[in-house]
Amino acid sequence: MPSYTAPTKDMAFVLHEMLDVTGAEIPGYDELEPDFTSAVLEEAGKIASEVLAPLNQVGDREGCTLENGVVRTPKGFKEAYDQICEGGWPALDLDPDYGGQGMPYVLATAVGEIFVSANMSFNMYTGLTHGAFSAIHTHGTDEQKARWLPNMATGKWSGTMNLTEPHCGTDLGLMRTRAEPRDDGTYRITGTKIFISAGDQDLSENVIHLVLAKAPGGGPGTKGISLFIVPKILVNEDGSLGEPNAVSVGNIEEKMGIHGNATCVMNYDGATGYLLGNLHKGMRAMFTMMNEARIGVGLQGYAQAEVAYQNALAYARERLQGRDVTGAKNPDGPADPLIVHPDIRRSLMDQKSFVEGARAFTLWGAKLIDRAQRAGDADAHGLISLMTPVIKGFQTDKGFEMCVQAQQVFGGHGYIEETGMSQFVRDARITQIYEGANGIQALDLVGRKLALDGGKHVMAFFEMVKGFIKENEGNEALKADFLDPLKAASKDLQAAGMYFMQNGMKNPNAALAGSYDFMHLFGHVCLGLMWGRMAVAAQKGLDAGTGDAAFYKAKLATGRYYMARQLPATALHLKRIESGADPVMGLAEDAF
Amino acid sequence: MPSYTAPTKDMAFVLHEMLDVTGAEIPGYDELEPDFTSAVLEEAGKIASEVLAPLNQVGDREGCTLENGVVRTPKGFKEAYDQICEGGWPALDLDPDYGGQGMPYVLATAVGEIFVSANMSFNMYTGLTHGAFSAIHTHGTDEQKARWLPNMATGKWSGTMNLTEPHCGTDLGLMRTRAEPRDDGTYRITGTKIFISAGDQDLSENVIHLVLAKAPGGGPGTKGISLFIVPKILVNEDGSLGEPNAVSVGNIEEKMGIHGNATCVMNYDGATGYLLGNLHKGMRAMFTMMNEARIGVGLQGYAQAEVAYQNALAYARERLQGRDVTGAKNPDGPADPLIVHPDIRRSLMDQKSFVEGARAFTLWGAKLIDRAQRAGDADAHGLISLMTPVIKGFQTDKGFEMCVQAQQVFGGHGYIEETGMSQFVRDARITQIYEGANGIQALDLVGRKLALDGGKHVMAFFEMVKGFIKENEGNEALKADFLDPLKAASKDLQAAGMYFMQNGMKNPNAALAGSYDFMHLFGHVCLGLMWGRMAVAAQKGLDAGTGDAAFYKAKLATGRYYMARQLPATALHLKRIESGADPVMGLAEDAF
Repeated sequence: MPSYTAPTKDMAFVLHEMLDVTGAEIPGYDELEPDFTSAVLEEAGKIASEVLAPLNQVGDREGCTLENGVVRTPKGFKEAYDQICEGGWPALDLDPDYGGQGMPYVLATAVGEIFVSANMSFNMYTGLTHGAFSAIHTHGTDEQKARWLPNMATGKWSGTMNLTEPHCGTDLGLMRTRAEPRDDGTYRITGTKIFISAGDQDLSENVIHLVLAKAPGGGPGTKGISLFIVPKILVNEDGSLGEPNAVSVGNIEEKMGIHGNATCVMNYDGATGYLLGNLHKGMRAMFTMMNEARIGVGLQGYAQAEVAYQNALAYARERLQGRDVTGAKNPDGPADPLIVHPDIRRSLMDQKSFVEGARAFTLWGAKLIDRAQRAGDADAHGLISLMTPVIKGFQTDKGFEMCVQAQQVFGGHGYIEETGMSQFVRDARITQIYEGANGIQALDLVGRKLALDGGKHVMAFFEMVKGFIKENEGNEALKADFLDPLKAASKDLQAAGMYFMQNGMKNPNAALAGSYDFMHLFGHVCLGLMWGRMAVAAQKGLDAGTGDAAFYKAKLATGRYYMARQLPATALHLKRIESGADPVMGLAEDAF
Repeated sequence: MPSYTAPTKDMAFVLHEMLDVTGAEIPGYDELEPDFTSAVLEEAGKIASEVLAPLNQVGDREGCTLENGVVRTPKGFKEAYDQICEGGWPALDLDPDYGGQGMPYVLATAVGEIFVSANMSFNMYTGLTHGAFSAIHTHGTDEQKARWLPNMATGKWSGTMNLTEPHCGTDLGLMRTRAEPRDDGTYRITGTKIFISAGDQDLSENVIHLVLAKAPGGGPGTKGISLFIVPKILVNEDGSLGEPNAVSVGNIEEKMGIHGNATCVMNYDGATGYLLGNLHKGMRAMFTMMNEARIGVGLQGYAQAEVAYQNALAYARERLQGRDVTGAKNPDGPADPLIVHPDIRRSLMDQKSFVEGARAFTLWGAKLIDRAQRAGDADAHGLISLMTPVIKGFQTDKGFEMCVQAQQVFGGHGYIEETGMSQFVRDARITQIYEGANGIQALDLVGRKLALDGGKHVMAFFEMVKGFIKENEGNEALKADFLDPLKAASKDLQAAGMYFMQNGMKNPNAALAGSYDFMHLFGHVCLGLMWGRMAVAAQKGLDAGTGDAAFYKAKLATGRYYMARQLPATALHLKRIESGADPVMGLAEDAF
């Protein structure tokens, strides 16, 4: 059975030595003293290892079942859910006015990584509630907030998001679910939604569905879409549960992975819904959930890679096979451990350097969100908007790839379900697909985010990289291994941006044909920047001579690997981008 | 449900226009007239579409079961097996002296692709018999050949290969299965083998296991290993079936994919075995099967990508979502089909250009095998030995990647088992693992094959590329799009080889740390060469003005894509290789 240990030391390094959270002057960050964050992360790690991780394979094997309209989650999920909720974990960063603990998002993100690594399917139940809470919190009336949020904060009620329909995924303009206004101000919701994660379960007393639907008079396409609160069970004026709403689960999908989470077909048969936010402005409200969800999915990508890596590393240390070509390392044993072999080492370093870079990138992004929300910093908001598709698309592609590499370390044993490595791959696969397939993330990045606010945020990012290099140019220890490769990669990114500017206006396909490569190019530069910043922090720690020298040295060695072996991918992505639309569109549609 | 249509036109193009099989002066190739090969491929395609493909999802869902020691294959497999065997398909290229049809391997390979695309799990039953037949044919005595082969050719009996044990996969020197000589010349085989594909089934009357075991006196490590024929049921002198042998199935593994094939734990409890080939030279005999199997697995890699691509293409044509940014292509419909979007087109072109390149490469390799075996050409034998790890490792990595991309085209629907796209991914995943995990292929390539016969074969390959470029340098239509990129890629490959020569002697890890990248670099150059050769053939067809001009133009457009967007990966691989051992080995084992 696979195991999991929270990487709390690596997290503390990012929070305190790279991001310097206590010095960040963001409201609420003064609480994030190392002793406090460590206590929180250690406790989360304990629950993850002892409660959630042991249920991960159970969830995969048992899956969820639908009997007589009732969804059953795998054995043990309910007990774990109660324990997690009683501990207040899902409400860590929620508004204290509605039952949350008011902690910064950056800390909740670190805790989220731990829970997702331990059991991604399980964590989706609380994760979706979190997203629904945020949407109601941002767009709801005071009355709605008072009515729905407190029970969602405690996990007594859960939340979902309902966008997709059988014939429309990305293109929500094709939506058919209708909302007819009633005289009492509520709406009658009718339609079928599919792929609804955590659509129903036996964990919470009620499920608060957020449903996109078309109300009369909104016009065609996405313009006519509104967002509705549609509870599974209607709630009386006094807050007690009333009659069941006309909401039912039509089916639970048979999926490649995340079997522990019930992916439901939801039927709304004239269900009572309450308008959330403005009429016909539902897309905007839904994007509140979506952006949060996209960062959460980007986190899932590397969190799955983290747990897969931990298990691959353990296997590489214990499995004896072959001999080190430079001389036996385990001469008294029948063979040397796998880890002596350079190609196994390459694979482990790929995994390790990606995961640590992605963690830094994600926590850096979480800090931007805190800066935007807690300090009202519009530039931080713009920058994280730009970065959201990169965090989602790049990190899930790479995260999946690293799960596959971790599985590969196990050889044939990795293909057997018992070792759990297949599950990590199958579970991670969904992260590239949901919350906007990664091609859509690339489109969002190139087609929308680059030009956001006149290109201001991408320019700010370039300045940030330039500033970082300049600031550290006297640091000879880092120049060749970190600063020079980052400079080269950043140049590739700028050249790609320039190519789009010069060609995209004449021919949008010239930009769109390179969008996917651009997303990866951007992701690599971001991780390169993070590794640069981690290297500076590690070097500082080493020079101070007070901390764990071996830890800092390992950080530097891992970073060197990323810069030498992963970052140079930017040149390939640029080359592809600069080949333009012709190779991609040269074959006519009917000639395939 | 996914569907499959054999790409017979593409196959004919490779066989006749690129490889010019009838002009190849290889014994038996004179039979390969276009009418004949087309008839064979069309017929194979018919069976594949009508019989095998419809059973593919059945096999995935039902899997194989073990009850009271009896293995049951999924519903319909037995009928399909009988039909395939009655048609003589598995014996297409086997020796006519023992019931085969004596066709060239190149034709059997094309047929193999068709069957593997339609149903990989099913095809493994006959595929393993083929490998076992070859091993007995090559290393058996006349008496053994007469006794075992005819029934294997008809499929009345099947075959397996037994290498792996719980504690030893790649490192066969750790083997524990014992063979004790008996007075009558037979051996008593005792031990447990795992991961035995097609280990047992209810399709054939008998199963002829080829089992590696250690006989006394052979010395330590792989030196002491011999190969034995161990039938499931003993065979009487008159050829009739006798008593059951002491062979049993301990378990069927729960795997990520290929559920239709029974992957067995095999127990040998003093079973009767017959020495095959020379005592203590079992590794050599096993390599006969292994090399054939490795090319077969390389074929599986792209054959799975082919069927996944076909279904992704069909979905991209029919699924309406979003609008072409350059103007609606389906203005009367609610949205345009996915295929109008550049990023979907990129993905489809990735898949298409890989599959067609890999098919050419594999059939080119199959022709080398024919040249080696039928014309006794030692250089051809050396060249295919060099290429075997490239065909296996590169094509299965890319094949898996392309299955993932094909699944991605389906968005959320690709994650649902019903569409069948998940199965292609899960099935393709094993190809990177079995018959030597791809890291082992890379090691074989760099550690053994490059230096084979003093490096003669890799030099011959370089000369071949150079010769091709020189031969066509006057062809202005191909220069910029095909010849120049191939020249650049080939230069990267030579530079990588040079790096290994200069650094590998001092520090083997400098070469081994780059072995995986080298395998991919080599693979890209091979596919680049194949695309060059296909482009020449297509251009010739176009210039002649007699064939299907649209087909030739599509070939050229697809090739241009590969050269512009895939081949440039060679520079990245070279850069990684030239970064040497330090980044890879810089982090000490205990510092992970």
